[in-house]
Amino acid sequence: MHRRLAPLSVNTATLGFKQPLPVVVEALARRSVQGIAPWRREFQDTPVKEARRIIADAGLQVTSLCRGSYLTFASDHQRRAILEDNRRAIDEAAAMGAPTLCMVVGGLPEGVRDLAQARDQVAEQLAALVPHARAHQVRLSVEPLHPMYAADRSCISTLAQALDICDRIGPDLGVMIDAYHLWWDPEFAAGLARAGQDRLLGWQICDWRAVTRDLLQDRGMIGDGVIDLKRMHRDMLEAGWRGMIEVEIFSGLDWDHRPMDETLDVLCARFADLALPAEPVSTF
Amino acid sequence: MHRRLAPLSVNTATLGFKQPLPVVVEALARRSVQGIAPWRREFQDTPVKEARRIIADAGLQVTSLCRGSYLTFASDHQRRAILEDNRRAIDEAAAMGAPTLCMVVGGLPEGVRDLAQARDQVAEQLAALVPHARAHQVRLSVEPLHPMYAADRSCISTLAQALDICDRIGPDLGVMIDAYHLWWDPEFAAGLARAGQDRLLGWQICDWRAVTRDLLQDRGMIGDGVIDLKRMHRDMLEAGWRGMIEVEIFSGLDWDHRPMDETLDVLCARFADLALPAEPVSTF
Repeated sequence: MHRRLAPLSVNTATLGFKQPLPVVVEALARRSVQGIAPWRREFQDTPVKEARRIIADAGLQVTSLCRGSYLTFASDHQRRAILEDNRRAIDEAAAMGAPTLCMVVGGLPEGVRDLAQARDQVAEQLAALVPHARAHQVRLSVEPLHPMYAADRSCISTLAQALDICDRIGPDLGVMIDAYHLWWDPEFAAGLARAGQDRLLGWQICDWRAVTRDLLQDRGMIGDGVIDLKRMHRDMLEAGWRGMIEVEIFSGLDWDHRPMDETLDVLCARFADLALPAEPVSTF
Repeated sequence: MHRRLAPLSVNTATLGFKQPLPVVVEALARRSVQGIAPWRREFQDTPVKEARRIIADAGLQVTSLCRGSYLTFASDHQRRAILEDNRRAIDEAAAMGAPTLCMVVGGLPEGVRDLAQARDQVAEQLAALVPHARAHQVRLSVEPLHPMYAADRSCISTLAQALDICDRIGPDLGVMIDAYHLWWDPEFAAGLARAGQDRLLGWQICDWRAVTRDLLQDRGMIGDGVIDLKRMHRDMLEAGWRGMIEVEIFSGLDWDHRPMDETLDVLCARFADLALPAEPVSTF
């Protein structure tokens, strides 16, 4: 039986930003990786138009641009600066031809303990960004982050919360699904079904190391942890996802210290082992 | 206006097990702390009957016994050993006159990635323990743990999941509410309302340090973090809670290295500052 496999995209954070973007692109193309998700910081060395050309010339597709800056704020001055920076991020996503700008929404503002207030700020800020995003045909993907980041990175912790915000703001928004953040959630499949195909804007994977040594910098290489990626991918397919799978690993404790080529070789081999299908597989 | 304040209980893990139980009890009584939650390991030095007598003589009440052993298993042999140990834990809770035995249910068994399977094991094991618990008039409190422990400590991550298990097994079960595990959950108040007074078996607090340096050993002293304890306590009161507030801090990175008396002095002062009421406060 021959089954078409889901295509692979690599988020450049996985490679620790040790090499400039053109070198990364060449390394991906050499391994027949089909997609890339760059980070905005890389445009400091490789201007966005050049980045787009290099990626297209290598035959790669951009799966997302990482990422908007935190939306929560402690002052009106900060609120305006945040909007300004995120409008620039939208411009960059448009200039890259990225299908979505990934939004990590921010945690509690300084001195605030009220998560509901922070969540209201996020909704308000996203609403304020919608006209600019629409004008540039960029969809904003709200990414629920693991609850362990609720204080400092994202007051949106569950898929249900992210979808509540999408419902409130409208169809310019969708969600970024990351296995690392949602693998524990018993409502995962139900949330995807609620999202529906049109609001699923990205699908990121890595693994959860059973013994996790750091809250941020110890994500596991796929296969090195306990996440049931096959189950989660099946749920994604059943909800209508037909895009690439983006591998995003933050690993200041391990992989960042290895040569880029080693990380990529292991990543590609593990991804091939997983053999995740491109479409739902009938069991009959 | 004079408002009756909620009474304080101290979970002995907060004091790092540096002193034997009788010394801890004396230190608590000297500060007019009203409750204590011992750990089973302390019965190795202070037999359970002696522990009960010392605590009662000091005028303290036991708020919970910590804790049952992990319920998930990788073999039938392990499953039986787990039940045996938890029946001993129930015996000890009964011997202590503890109103509840706290159950931390365990994560994924070795080699298993299927959280649903682990959760089914938990329900099966709890059902198997019910007759023994009922015979000894001990209620088992299922404690949802923060999702960052889903792999290694608790496949039950949300209050809703814990209540689903209570619904399935029956009224011998209830839930242990810990602010550290649930502070991020947007469904917290709704979950408490669903639980109802009779199933709320314990109320533990500490704080979440905005920059958390370790997944297990960096809980914050109350007041040193971002948890809105007043809001959570108000939700508890509205759901019918009228018991003590148990302070439980695991802090191998900080407080465990300080003298017991220093930890207790700070804890009591911070608790007094919080001034959490014993009953719902009318806003009129």
